[in-house]
Amino acid sequence: MLNRNPNLARLKAGYLFPEIARRRREFAAAHPEDPARPETRIISLGVGNTTEPILPHTCRGLTEGARGLGTAEGYSGYQDEGLPELRRRISAVFYRPLGRDAAADRDAENGLPGGTVRGEPFSAEEIFISDGAKCDIGRLQLLFGAGTRVAVQDPSYPVYVDGSVLIGAAGDWTEDAAAGRAGYGGITYLPCTAENGCFPDLSQLPEHSLFYFCSPNNPTGAAATEEQLTELVAAARKKGCLIVFDAAYAEYIRDPALPKTIYAIQGSRECAIEVKSFSKPAGFTGVRLGWTVVPRELTYAGGESVNADWGRVMGTIFNGASNIAQAGGLAALSPEGLTEVRRLCDFYLGNAALIRAALRKLGISRVGGDNSPYVWARFPGRDSWEVFAEILERCRVVTTPGAGFGPAGQSFIRFSAFGHRSDVEEACRRLALMDPASG
Amino acid sequence: MLNRNPNLARLKAGYLFPEIARRRREFAAAHPEDPARPETRIISLGVGNTTEPILPHTCRGLTEGARGLGTAEGYSGYQDEGLPELRRRISAVFYRPLGRDAAADRDAENGLPGGTVRGEPFSAEEIFISDGAKCDIGRLQLLFGAGTRVAVQDPSYPVYVDGSVLIGAAGDWTEDAAAGRAGYGGITYLPCTAENGCFPDLSQLPEHSLFYFCSPNNPTGAAATEEQLTELVAAARKKGCLIVFDAAYAEYIRDPALPKTIYAIQGSRECAIEVKSFSKPAGFTGVRLGWTVVPRELTYAGGESVNADWGRVMGTIFNGASNIAQAGGLAALSPEGLTEVRRLCDFYLGNAALIRAALRKLGISRVGGDNSPYVWARFPGRDSWEVFAEILERCRVVTTPGAGFGPAGQSFIRFSAFGHRSDVEEACRRLALMDPASG
Repeated sequence: MLNRNPNLARLKAGYLFPEIARRRREFAAAHPEDPARPETRIISLGVGNTTEPILPHTCRGLTEGARGLGTAEGYSGYQDEGLPELRRRISAVFYRPLGRDAAADRDAENGLPGGTVRGEPFSAEEIFISDGAKCDIGRLQLLFGAGTRVAVQDPSYPVYVDGSVLIGAAGDWTEDAAAGRAGYGGITYLPCTAENGCFPDLSQLPEHSLFYFCSPNNPTGAAATEEQLTELVAAARKKGCLIVFDAAYAEYIRDPALPKTIYAIQGSRECAIEVKSFSKPAGFTGVRLGWTVVPRELTYAGGESVNADWGRVMGTIFNGASNIAQAGGLAALSPEGLTEVRRLCDFYLGNAALIRAALRKLGISRVGGDNSPYVWARFPGRDSWEVFAEILERCRVVTTPGAGFGPAGQSFIRFSAFGHRSDVEEACRRLALMDPASG
Repeated sequence: MLNRNPNLARLKAGYLFPEIARRRREFAAAHPEDPARPETRIISLGVGNTTEPILPHTCRGLTEGARGLGTAEGYSGYQDEGLPELRRRISAVFYRPLGRDAAADRDAENGLPGGTVRGEPFSAEEIFISDGAKCDIGRLQLLFGAGTRVAVQDPSYPVYVDGSVLIGAAGDWTEDAAAGRAGYGGITYLPCTAENGCFPDLSQLPEHSLFYFCSPNNPTGAAATEEQLTELVAAARKKGCLIVFDAAYAEYIRDPALPKTIYAIQGSRECAIEVKSFSKPAGFTGVRLGWTVVPRELTYAGGESVNADWGRVMGTIFNGASNIAQAGGLAALSPEGLTEVRRLCDFYLGNAALIRAALRKLGISRVGGDNSPYVWARFPGRDSWEVFAEILERCRVVTTPGAGFGPAGQSFIRFSAFGHRSDVEEACRRLALMDPASG
């Protein structure tokens, strides 16, 4: 038979979230829920999966998109490159240039401010519709290939590293228990800690590297400031790096001073790709819709266009997002839809506020949750899988152990704000059952 | 900046279908359509894109799936691994084992016979729901990696080769105009010609290679017989090859003697992955839904499970097919839905019959179109891009030049049967305007 891709052998046991699901199943089998005792029910604040119904106007867009496929006028087949109307709408809502008094008229029109960019607005040809951010991140690796030098924030969303391993851009996994460090050879982990305000020391960013940067951050919940992003873009340009800016949670930003897109920073078009998604702002985790911006200005070292290559990669191994999802995306970006986006994000931010308050009461230090749906809690000196197990056993609440996001996540737990309100309230009550200082 | 993936530089100019679309646009710009003269309208028998509305029961499944997402009971988020109900239904409809008198009761239940397999039926864990065959084929390459030896039928669907180039499993493109040969180094092209009945000489299949085999074939329209597939499986087992069996057009098979799945052949579970799609049978090209069967029996040379790795790849760089598409897929596999599948395929097969008749009348030799939606027409001694241009100019009909599918497609044209009936009839009338013998 054929040989296994050696990169697959390099991947650590399981992708984080299936592993958590497995541990939850094991616990549930050993401790069955008793319907007569609601306190035995397991509540998940683990995976960042949306739980609330899609709001009416957006849902109508999806339903009408589906119904239309049954009619001669409404039928459509392959939409490889995405509906032009959706691409234009994304540009208008999220990438209106600064200086056009964009904020005022867009607020009025849309019910919420999107990001604003420096320079000209993006053309439809710079916006590629996809089936979601995770899938695009997996495909993006193909632009640079096996020899790429990769850098990530530590902790970070697992797909950046796992996708790099799959494409052969990483070496073997090594652990140094004594030093409390673990990671793949060839990947540069830039620690984001309480000490540096969750913003990495960019002097450690290797030259000519592909740098995955997520803001608002998953898992720390930290949203980078304009000053920090300016520093990031300057470092990337100086060092010849390309930033993959994951802005999947940008619609959770409520502080008007925080940029919602990397393109708000001068010079970013020459060094950044931005990946975005309808999953978290519109409840589309199961619907599957996102987009990636690849500015025309972006080139490789040899001068070739990254935008042209991305079109070629997408045309070769992708066949477009579902046209039903795209109809829903259009509805979500209408004025009514954008009001719904704001409402839905506000709901989950309300959950995050409850989680932060519960942790504060317990004296557990935490960041995030104000401009993001994740709260990042610190348990000094403890192993995060052990804390995960304790919270599951004592409180019957599923969380995500920080170590799953990288070496620097070791003594942290990520609480996801995605859940029904009553579940989050009940989980917060139960958290009082744990003893944060125990070990 | 970063270096470009050298594999991207190796890819020939454009993916075939965008290239055809570009030539069509150029022609249309130079020869504008005149609404007063219907004969100036361009008709496409080019890309295999479905044109007919989704039939009512299946469309209702999609619409209800979308509507349900707006309700607390019907909402769902990530469905990474696919709805268990859909996976079980696929197994029951397409992979019922031989010897259970499957044909009789399934016919009654479903309105159409699916494939039948040897051995036990597949479990849900062996069936992976995806957003379509092309996307899965792109991801499949990650199982084996850059060092893989790849073999394809020649001609073949471009993604097998282009995906292999992207992952680094191919060398440079070379052309030998004198010998009339062109192709990538490291890829073995197994000619499927009129002389060998479109079935390759398997003595040329390299040992331990990944062999992409498509039946009913795109582009030749040939459907392999049970004897041919038995020979294929025997060769793969003897040589330690893995077959990626692309059965995207299986529902177009009308000859009851022809197998609809590779698993009808004894021994195939140990050497074959099967890729399938709802696109062509249910009109889902824009909806995006497919599946891949990876039997538990499949192992690498080192004994590791291919099924486990596929789960890991899908969990890492994919996030599930749209749950709306999956609801539609379930409806399409109900008894009413399966009747619609048969009706829709019959419609396109009716188009294929018209195309075959028109070519016969012109004395052009052709294969396919009886158990597939493609007709493969031969223009001896001529360059296929030149014939493509002639048909576009004289008849204003877009086709696909055979050379786009591989070296052996050089003097062929693929006619797609996907189109409205009136367009296909008009295109067939116009074909009389061309002179097949000219050059």
